[in-house]
Amino acid sequence: MKLEGLSILGQTRVTTAGKPNAAINPATGAVIGPDFFWATTADVDAAAQFAAKAFVEFSRWPGRRREGFLKRIAELLEADAAAIVERANQETGLPVARLQGELARTYVQMRQYGEAAASGLCAGARIDHADPNRKPQPKPDLRSMMVPLGPVVVFSASNFPLAYSVAGGDTASALAAGCPVIVKPHQGHLGTSELVALVVQQAVRDCGAPEGIFSMLYGAGREVGIALVKHPLVKAVGFTGSRAGGRALMDAAAARPEPIPVYAEMGSINPVFMLSGALNHKAEELAAGLHGSVTLGVGQFCTNPGLIFVERAAAAKSFLQKLENLTASTPPGTMLTADLCSAYRAGVEKFSKATGVHRAVTVDAEAGEGKAQAGAALFVTDAVTFLGNHSLMDEVFGPSTLVVECSSREQMLAAAKKLEGQLTATIHGTPEDFAASRELIETLANKAGRLVCNAFPTGVEVCHAMTHGGPYPATSDGRSTSVGTRAIERFVRPVCFQNFPDAALPDELKESNPLGIWRLVDGKLARAATPS
Amino acid sequence: MKLEGLSILGQTRVTTAGKPNAAINPATGAVIGPDFFWATTADVDAAAQFAAKAFVEFSRWPGRRREGFLKRIAELLEADAAAIVERANQETGLPVARLQGELARTYVQMRQYGEAAASGLCAGARIDHADPNRKPQPKPDLRSMMVPLGPVVVFSASNFPLAYSVAGGDTASALAAGCPVIVKPHQGHLGTSELVALVVQQAVRDCGAPEGIFSMLYGAGREVGIALVKHPLVKAVGFTGSRAGGRALMDAAAARPEPIPVYAEMGSINPVFMLSGALNHKAEELAAGLHGSVTLGVGQFCTNPGLIFVERAAAAKSFLQKLENLTASTPPGTMLTADLCSAYRAGVEKFSKATGVHRAVTVDAEAGEGKAQAGAALFVTDAVTFLGNHSLMDEVFGPSTLVVECSSREQMLAAAKKLEGQLTATIHGTPEDFAASRELIETLANKAGRLVCNAFPTGVEVCHAMTHGGPYPATSDGRSTSVGTRAIERFVRPVCFQNFPDAALPDELKESNPLGIWRLVDGKLARAATPS
Repeated sequence: MKLEGLSILGQTRVTTAGKPNAAINPATGAVIGPDFFWATTADVDAAAQFAAKAFVEFSRWPGRRREGFLKRIAELLEADAAAIVERANQETGLPVARLQGELARTYVQMRQYGEAAASGLCAGARIDHADPNRKPQPKPDLRSMMVPLGPVVVFSASNFPLAYSVAGGDTASALAAGCPVIVKPHQGHLGTSELVALVVQQAVRDCGAPEGIFSMLYGAGREVGIALVKHPLVKAVGFTGSRAGGRALMDAAAARPEPIPVYAEMGSINPVFMLSGALNHKAEELAAGLHGSVTLGVGQFCTNPGLIFVERAAAAKSFLQKLENLTASTPPGTMLTADLCSAYRAGVEKFSKATGVHRAVTVDAEAGEGKAQAGAALFVTDAVTFLGNHSLMDEVFGPSTLVVECSSREQMLAAAKKLEGQLTATIHGTPEDFAASRELIETLANKAGRLVCNAFPTGVEVCHAMTHGGPYPATSDGRSTSVGTRAIERFVRPVCFQNFPDAALPDELKESNPLGIWRLVDGKLARAATPS
Repeated sequence: MKLEGLSILGQTRVTTAGKPNAAINPATGAVIGPDFFWATTADVDAAAQFAAKAFVEFSRWPGRRREGFLKRIAELLEADAAAIVERANQETGLPVARLQGELARTYVQMRQYGEAAASGLCAGARIDHADPNRKPQPKPDLRSMMVPLGPVVVFSASNFPLAYSVAGGDTASALAAGCPVIVKPHQGHLGTSELVALVVQQAVRDCGAPEGIFSMLYGAGREVGIALVKHPLVKAVGFTGSRAGGRALMDAAAARPEPIPVYAEMGSINPVFMLSGALNHKAEELAAGLHGSVTLGVGQFCTNPGLIFVERAAAAKSFLQKLENLTASTPPGTMLTADLCSAYRAGVEKFSKATGVHRAVTVDAEAGEGKAQAGAALFVTDAVTFLGNHSLMDEVFGPSTLVVECSSREQMLAAAKKLEGQLTATIHGTPEDFAASRELIETLANKAGRLVCNAFPTGVEVCHAMTHGGPYPATSDGRSTSVGTRAIERFVRPVCFQNFPDAALPDELKESNPLGIWRLVDGKLARAATPS
């Protein structure tokens, strides 16, 4: 596939006269061809109109047909894996093995969300039968199910150039729901985005889908991105990125004449609580595990543990010593973009200068124009300092973490209560530690979307039970998850049919249950056909 | 119970030095005692702090205990029914029989939402078991369920002084979810609000609940209301009222440092489509049914049909003639407040002057200071005029409706496509009409929360399958319903537990399924204990 650097509008390419933009190899700072061209606000309008038109037909597609489409995307991604991974490696500096794993995760998501659409899991079908003899009023027949919202705009993540990008989790869940998608790709992997978009475009052809269900518009967030969010035909937004970026989209969406939902995943410092029993039992093992989680992928995961509360314990010192040694011997790594690397260096600098914070380790890395090399960093402070300085909760995106030494479990609990919303919170403890930590667990369940026990938060399983979400500011909407089949529920709404003739009902609600899906019938879950 | 006119803060009353406010009988304009006093922003803070403190314990209550509390409220409301109905009748002008029915609905809601909490229906429990042998990474054990958001502020509706007021649908669904509630009552039924709040206060005592789970603060929407929405400890808002009022709350919530969800039900014109087959089959019956729906409760229902599209048909004329005759013979009725009545008169005046709109009937009603008497009104226009004048979609809250004569089904479809979001859309047709109206049905399913076939939209059944919601501007959030057990889902969010010891898990997620609830286990719905 030859790259053209042009936006994709259904089955066509957008020709444009703007100034060219370059893709950069962050490991070398070198430009990689071709030139890429930004879309205009006229293209935004065209894509939205196209999506709204396609929605009329796409919203009629049964779940099984949507599944076929998602599976076709997965097949084509698999067939083009080598080219996609090669380009992504050049554009992001992420290792080939990691990118292969991430692409596999991308197929898994497509297939899993497709299966959820086909199985009726997200249809939420409910039937309450009529009772013509009820007094004082007869009871009508009422049936409801979830229907798609309409065109969805997806903003790609920089740190998952495949699994949370053009054909990533937000796109897969919106398509599984029956919503057309317009992607605004991240500038950190322009060519990868084009390769993946061409795959989706091919799948649209192969499955006879209305072409407007997928477009991809290159551009800057402030122009093309905001124009997409403000377009009246757009009905929801998915985003993964910074808090400032996510909040700008939330504010734009809330100020529309018709406000729309924004699902922004804006990062988190993912606190880890090391309880004394666990520390005394396996201090060095915990230090090694934590170090692996902090430095995985050069620390560029939303679930990277950036804040470690260590309870007073005999073995706390050896835990910290081991963590220092491992951090000091960590080789520098290439970050995704030079901008992210500069922000990382600034964050490390800020923590280095913070009063009461000890800079235990900072690994040197080659600096200079176009270089995105980052060294790991480890800071240590005490709970009193932490409780007195709100800026110590700021996220430093990269392989840095802050250890907070707590002199008691009460102090640890006080720190937990001060935390903002998080994607995850982790507790390491023995069964006795857990039994004595009910208030800590409850506090963290109130702050985070996922609680992890005796493991590390990096690694987000794609499954039915996953919550990758959490209260603001971790996300814009703590009622949602962006990973797992529940992600589909973000893009639907319930519609109720009263006294409808069976023939005019969607299959999901027909009396004979032709799809064989689970439904809540008169308050009871049932899958068999209901007696007529 | 003696009324004191004071706000309720947990188990105490708020003493205040502000200026007194009066409750008014809208039928006579007479003041009804006692004086009522507005709360202050200090009271807002106290109620929010109290609610947040109570949330710690209340969020631990199992569903069955929440059910017990809701059922106790229902019992006490039933025991005090006579006094509550008598006061509501004085304050709202609504007939005693209607208020008795509405109070019965209030118990039904409390009990039904309590049962939903106890049954685990809204827990959404999901379990994905571990697979230690999976390659390349072992699969962790993941379990998720819905947990309450935290303190919820409820703004009462004027038009349902019982079922959507202090102990109404929003309060019942928030409490069923496990969220403390702070009510800002409507000024149209101050004494009724106090009587009902005292009942809830009693139920809190009877059930040993933490007292902060319920407070009620009298006040003006612009001061006390906005202060409640802006309070950092408040986590969600329920509202029923005007579009301007709802939007003000949405904007305030979106502009908070931590934005929170607002569920505002802001009304609707509830279009009705009369297809030719149905008209020709039973024109007069349709006119009688429609007239009953338009004038029910002096037109003061959110689901009042304010816009009637009539297809060209042989019997269209007799339909319209019958509707005119019935409207002309409708006696005037007392509206809920003098302000609502003034707004109704202004709306009728506006439609009377609109170009191309024929004022078919306006029933005279006694006007004057303190009088809230409203007469029914019927307007007629054609589809071309309707399509050219957006303001003909404005809601006139009261017993008025606008008939739009359409010369073809295509014109009717064009009008449907132009509609804003609605709570309901209704179609009257024969099986042949329905078979030929797929695009109309699909268009309306995209615009409304509930589609009604051969019936009228007034009357909202409280059941599992109900959707009382719809795209903006009918509500702030088309993904939600404010009636039926799904209303509880507005006040929860998912939390996931990874690799937790069974003893530290909530009962809903324990391996043995001690609550016997339905759960999605490894992708399959199951209620039996899972093999360990």
